[in-house]
Amino acid sequence: MIDLSLLPDGGMAWLEASGVGSHLVVSTRVRLARNLKQHRFATRNDAAEREAIYGEVDAAAAEAAGLRRAVRFRVDHLELADRRLLHERHLLSRELAAPEPEGRVRQGGGLLVQESASIMVNEEDHLRLQAIRSGFALEGAWKAVSTLDVELGQRLAFAFHPEFGYLTSCPTNVGTGLRASVLVHLPGLVLTKEINKILQALTQVGLTFRGLYGEGSEVVGNLFQLSNQTTLGKSEPELLDHLGKLVRLVIENEERARQLLLRDATSIIEDKVWRAYALLRYARTLSLDETMNLLSGVRLGVGLGLIPNVGMYALNKLLVFAQPAHLAATERRTLSDDETPVRRAAYVRQVLEDEVGRRGPSAGTPSA
Amino acid sequence: MIDLSLLPDGGMAWLEASGVGSHLVVSTRVRLARNLKQHRFATRNDAAEREAIYGEVDAAAAEAAGLRRAVRFRVDHLELADRRLLHERHLLSRELAAPEPEGRVRQGGGLLVQESASIMVNEEDHLRLQAIRSGFALEGAWKAVSTLDVELGQRLAFAFHPEFGYLTSCPTNVGTGLRASVLVHLPGLVLTKEINKILQALTQVGLTFRGLYGEGSEVVGNLFQLSNQTTLGKSEPELLDHLGKLVRLVIENEERARQLLLRDATSIIEDKVWRAYALLRYARTLSLDETMNLLSGVRLGVGLGLIPNVGMYALNKLLVFAQPAHLAATERRTLSDDETPVRRAAYVRQVLEDEVGRRGPSAGTPSA
Repeated sequence: MIDLSLLPDGGMAWLEASGVGSHLVVSTRVRLARNLKQHRFATRNDAAEREAIYGEVDAAAAEAAGLRRAVRFRVDHLELADRRLLHERHLLSRELAAPEPEGRVRQGGGLLVQESASIMVNEEDHLRLQAIRSGFALEGAWKAVSTLDVELGQRLAFAFHPEFGYLTSCPTNVGTGLRASVLVHLPGLVLTKEINKILQALTQVGLTFRGLYGEGSEVVGNLFQLSNQTTLGKSEPELLDHLGKLVRLVIENEERARQLLLRDATSIIEDKVWRAYALLRYARTLSLDETMNLLSGVRLGVGLGLIPNVGMYALNKLLVFAQPAHLAATERRTLSDDETPVRRAAYVRQVLEDEVGRRGPSAGTPSA
Repeated sequence: MIDLSLLPDGGMAWLEASGVGSHLVVSTRVRLARNLKQHRFATRNDAAEREAIYGEVDAAAAEAAGLRRAVRFRVDHLELADRRLLHERHLLSRELAAPEPEGRVRQGGGLLVQESASIMVNEEDHLRLQAIRSGFALEGAWKAVSTLDVELGQRLAFAFHPEFGYLTSCPTNVGTGLRASVLVHLPGLVLTKEINKILQALTQVGLTFRGLYGEGSEVVGNLFQLSNQTTLGKSEPELLDHLGKLVRLVIENEERARQLLLRDATSIIEDKVWRAYALLRYARTLSLDETMNLLSGVRLGVGLGLIPNVGMYALNKLLVFAQPAHLAATERRTLSDDETPVRRAAYVRQVLEDEVGRRGPSAGTPSA
């Protein structure tokens, strides 16, 4: 099993809850899709070509100042448990981590992780540069990937068309190759049933939404990943600005919904958030979906100041560490399907207990 | 509002959980139905006759050694809130406490409460003598009502037929006029789905079952009141012996079911009882039914030794004090329908918190 502590910041700085608006926004992610112009796209190339691609990227990275000390993984040399671990940390896409249904991992797949950003090699595109930041931080995330992009671009010839821009494996990414997404927690809009109206409106102005794990993942725990749908015809700053403005609007609506709920349905909301806390604190078996939904309730309670002395950092950490591969890594062994929910519940209990211990005896003690 | 502290032991000694098998058996109740032979039965008499009946019983009680210091209530002079309070303490039947749909309380209704037993006057029968004891205590409860019966019988002429025995308003009570019931907690048999088979078998041997509040009340919180169905053709000791043997059988089956569950479904049971504890400890609004069901879970957990440091006495007390009239009495004011579940949750939380405080800091702290 790989030693995740070797990763710069464990690839986890985005969990810190230190960023702007971190009571509502978990994280911001920006990624760029790039391809090498001398090589065929992923859909058409073969193992030998992917080896060549990996070699070129690796060599370029070794020379680039910002990547020299990056931790490198040949994904196809990793065990499934390790690939899943990296996937749960949002460093590997599901496709590169655990391809289904064949179950064979793509030969030549690579991952380079440095402090401010990471690169997947031989995913859908030859290179996927990404940066994740805590809170609402489009600019910071963009700067990090942009720096990498410039450094690598000086050493690698990217497929670029003067009219269309960067060329990508899937046409939806052609142009800037940029996808920026903001992971927002919207329980207020879900409870007031405004969410569908808002998501529909966002779709009409070029945004899309996904679950915690990107394309094809379902929304759980009221966590919505809002991102730009188009990457073509606008500059990167324009795309980021457009997304930023709309996310700010969504946040305002969420804040308003929460205040409405707190005013008009106080005891219902209090009950909801405390029940979520109660179950996370005492349950003996927890599915991942239930955990995510209960974490959503507690997060809302913490955000509204109803639940004292539980930190957003602890809640963010649980989003990652309550997942199967992380639970197994914590236990240093494989967990059966029956064991996982039991170990998850034990882990979640421990984190919340530590949180109460750390923040004083009154924490979590309900007022009358 | 009446001052319940004036009642000998508050009419609550049966909550002590001090009796035999109190982890399974909440309480034992024995009642005798008696009527005065010079007066018409309740179904046919009028207010004036009920006044006369109350007067005669009152006079006899004043002379009887065991009743001289009884606290007396003219039920029809009490406010509805007080009648409900006495009903929630199992001292008044629902019929005498809050007749529906008319809403008018029966004139001449009375209640005499002394330490070991109590008497309702002008209920379905002229006199209903009852004793409730903690745990499985048929003999103790029987002795208490029997003593009262003898004392009153020396001063009042009861309607008695040499062939049929004591005559009662409803033919099902003719004979001994005795109904003995044992309030047992059977979550194990409910979870293993054996309960229906067992209840059916009991019915075939002359037993019947009811909810916490006797005839017509639904079973909540897995609390079954098992009692004799017939009162005729057998002596009191025979009836009590028959009931006692069958209840012991039910208890054995329940114990077996619990051990099976603990062995074969450990994490499911642990999860169930801790979730119940969690919600009672942290919910901000609780309906009575949910409270009863959650108390059942915690009671099971305490009985199985899974939940440490919560006492059966506290759980028993909640069965009574989480009810609407008791919550209002605790608050010393009328509670609206919206307020009651919120105050109930606050009250339950406080009791469980006090319990943890009283029994040491480790109480309720889950082990990993």
